[in-house]
Amino acid sequence: MIEPFATQVNFGTGVIDSVPHIITRRLSDMRRMYADPHTLEAQIAAHGDPLVYEVYPVELPEEAGQILHCTTIIYPGRVNDEYYMTKGHFHSKRDCGEVYLGLSGTGMLLLQLEDGTVRAVPMTPGTSAYVPPYWAHRTVNTGNEPFIFFAAWPGDAGHDYGTIEQTGFAQLLVDRGGVPTLVPNPRYP
Amino acid sequence: MIEPFATQVNFGTGVIDSVPHIITRRLSDMRRMYADPHTLEAQIAAHGDPLVYEVYPVELPEEAGQILHCTTIIYPGRVNDEYYMTKGHFHSKRDCGEVYLGLSGTGMLLLQLEDGTVRAVPMTPGTSAYVPPYWAHRTVNTGNEPFIFFAAWPGDAGHDYGTIEQTGFAQLLVDRGGVPTLVPNPRYP
Repeated sequence: MIEPFATQVNFGTGVIDSVPHIITRRLSDMRRMYADPHTLEAQIAAHGDPLVYEVYPVELPEEAGQILHCTTIIYPGRVNDEYYMTKGHFHSKRDCGEVYLGLSGTGMLLLQLEDGTVRAVPMTPGTSAYVPPYWAHRTVNTGNEPFIFFAAWPGDAGHDYGTIEQTGFAQLLVDRGGVPTLVPNPRYP
Repeated sequence: MIEPFATQVNFGTGVIDSVPHIITRRLSDMRRMYADPHTLEAQIAAHGDPLVYEVYPVELPEEAGQILHCTTIIYPGRVNDEYYMTKGHFHSKRDCGEVYLGLSGTGMLLLQLEDGTVRAVPMTPGTSAYVPPYWAHRTVNTGNEPFIFFAAWPGDAGHDYGTIEQTGFAQLLVDRGGVPTLVPNPRYP
């Protein structure tokens, strides 16, 4: 039996108090994720491997019936014209959904089915974006300040990063004169 | 297959746009919930059946793998010394948890196990309060403005109101000189 508890979420910074293990992703952790690997390596060399995103996961058992939850902070930045973003994943248990609540900044939720169908959902503070079962999901910071959101998902969903790491999404979200624009991913089979 | 979608949550009012069926609970819907039924009836007669709380549920299938979510707005008020609150329920599927995120106002999350064990978790804006599996849950407005929060729970959890309607919680949360205080519920067996 788990005792009820509370954590405190700072909507402005995304920090959750009393989270023991913060997940930190730097540009070097995203090597397989960007269409332009040369610019990525040049940025790591020039800027000392900048932070791309951080996750504050509240500690709970990863089992059916639990509602796992976290905040994510994606920093503003780009690799060439491709925005800073999360790695993205399917749930290992494909029939598990997820809900997001935008807290600060602006971004886009990218979703993809196994057949390559892509959707993009804009997010601002207060946007509750729904990831239905079977959709892979990645979040992208399309603005100039940190993009911060809260997420909740089933405890038994699991994470399958491999599928997305191998091929990426079928479409990339890139900056075209200041406008977030979906373009075909040349690496996608 | 469900298409991804987004709704917009107003953190100040609790309103979610494009929710077709808002749940409205007035004092007359709470007749079995308060320790002092005479004061409750007198308030209905004098004030025209005031709103106690409203729920904006985002429409989704109530099935395993979905993450249902809503906002709840509990108005400030009391019946004698007992604060305005939600009915409270167990999940029909007892091993399902739930997560809350405080958006506005101040309140308390009350929880109870089937054996009558009670816990109380204070909530302010930014508080992420966790309802672990097996705990009945009720939220209470202990402040002077609307208490508003976002909630997410498993699609197959279900709601069992009957158990709480028959006996209430083992403890009541009452105002004692401006301080929210737990006292034994005289109706609890």
